[in-house]
Amino acid sequence: MTVRNLVVVGVGLIGGSLAAGARAKGLAERIIGIEPNPQSANYALAQGLVDEIVAEVPGDTDLCALCVPSDLVAEWVLKLADHAATVIDVGSVKAPIVEAVQTAASPVTNFVPCHPISGSEKSGPTGADAQLFDGCAVVITPLPQGDGQRQAQTEEFWQRLGTRVQVMSPAEHDRALAVTSHLPHLLAFAFMQRVTPSHTGLTGGGFRDFTRIAGADPELWWRILRLNKDSVIESARQFGDDLQQLIAAIENNDSTVGLAQLRNAAEKKTSTKKNGHE
Amino acid sequence: MTVRNLVVVGVGLIGGSLAAGARAKGLAERIIGIEPNPQSANYALAQGLVDEIVAEVPGDTDLCALCVPSDLVAEWVLKLADHAATVIDVGSVKAPIVEAVQTAASPVTNFVPCHPISGSEKSGPTGADAQLFDGCAVVITPLPQGDGQRQAQTEEFWQRLGTRVQVMSPAEHDRALAVTSHLPHLLAFAFMQRVTPSHTGLTGGGFRDFTRIAGADPELWWRILRLNKDSVIESARQFGDDLQQLIAAIENNDSTVGLAQLRNAAEKKTSTKKNGHE
Repeated sequence: MTVRNLVVVGVGLIGGSLAAGARAKGLAERIIGIEPNPQSANYALAQGLVDEIVAEVPGDTDLCALCVPSDLVAEWVLKLADHAATVIDVGSVKAPIVEAVQTAASPVTNFVPCHPISGSEKSGPTGADAQLFDGCAVVITPLPQGDGQRQAQTEEFWQRLGTRVQVMSPAEHDRALAVTSHLPHLLAFAFMQRVTPSHTGLTGGGFRDFTRIAGADPELWWRILRLNKDSVIESARQFGDDLQQLIAAIENNDSTVGLAQLRNAAEKKTSTKKNGHE
Repeated sequence: MTVRNLVVVGVGLIGGSLAAGARAKGLAERIIGIEPNPQSANYALAQGLVDEIVAEVPGDTDLCALCVPSDLVAEWVLKLADHAATVIDVGSVKAPIVEAVQTAASPVTNFVPCHPISGSEKSGPTGADAQLFDGCAVVITPLPQGDGQRQAQTEEFWQRLGTRVQVMSPAEHDRALAVTSHLPHLLAFAFMQRVTPSHTGLTGGGFRDFTRIAGADPELWWRILRLNKDSVIESARQFGDDLQQLIAAIENNDSTVGLAQLRNAAEKKTSTKKNGHE
């Protein structure tokens, strides 16, 4: 199934990459952008990421991808509740979006909540990359009253874009992503506070990779950490306990506890590598 | 200046890479290995990393690179104190090595303590890579009574191997590396304790890069963390304070404090990238 009209709302890094990927893989006949920032809009047009820029979602849209910040998604979904298009999003935190959508007077049926687990420390359409989603995981957290056909259409779209789709509840998603994505960002942000100009030139490849995510967009990430705050704080507290245990083991030369943590870390790293999902 | 006989003690990842790099760049006429593990020794010979494997450092050795675990370095240095060769090491923690060497009855003058800030999550000579040191920083922490000519010879060797050399005190080195290398490892090890099989397939590129160092050799890293424990624990405690501040900001929706940390992290990441040293 090829989409006739694909609308991308928000042609930044993710929206631009979605448009570029859909174009490269022939998933849509026409790709239309909605982008309030004139610089981003002009860039997206000039690069052929989109065929045109419009102000409102056209009536004959089949699939509308909301690539706006998470806290703006629900508003767009409610506005499009009576539209014929299937509406998807790419927000990193799902429960707050689903909860906000469920406050609607009449249940929304055309929205399929999605989260492609991919990103980059770049931002804006200049970072758009048709391969950004290749091999990445996409989580779908369907609304209870969601339309099964629209969900199937959405799964097919993501699969044809080159991703692996998993379905789970918004709460499960948010708890898991707190650990696999939000906590690493939190730790990398906090870690960078310790880095000073005196460390210049004393860093190696480990530092470079460990801190890559510290360069992520601060405003975007502050919103994500706030939106998923309960799970993020819980994970951070549990991490703090593990760290205290490791520090105490170093201090007391308790190699039973210390080495056990390091070996456990190395084994888990090997197994996350082996499953081929990273 | 080309070294006639280069001896590499410990032909593992680092020793094997040093041998391979020296060979590739024509830095030594003959490269001789000392390696108690017969499997590693045979591999190093078969791959041509070394020309021969011997049991003792030959009398006509010019440069002897101790690529053994940090806690074995001082013993080797003291054994070679009267040897004509210049002796260097590659240990990640310098003060304990220098302190142990300084306990000698007559001051050691042929040892130049070194730390190439490079590594890999691989281990053993099968991970040896002639390019491992390309562009990396090497810190030299000279002994007060060290021989200036031997230090100059050592600097030239590292420079010709493709590295940038910095000279500082052992204490300065250990404090800086606690932040730029040992703390990131500590945090990655502790972080992995939170990862469970339920997270399989829910990880992206951020997770992959952030946790790469968690796969490092547990025994080696337990030794490093223990050897530099004062600086490591101090850095970890200061990190803990920053993390607590960030968690509190998320909890209280204090975007002044929270966003300031995230922006500070992003700016520092940009500047460590810009200086071209990562």
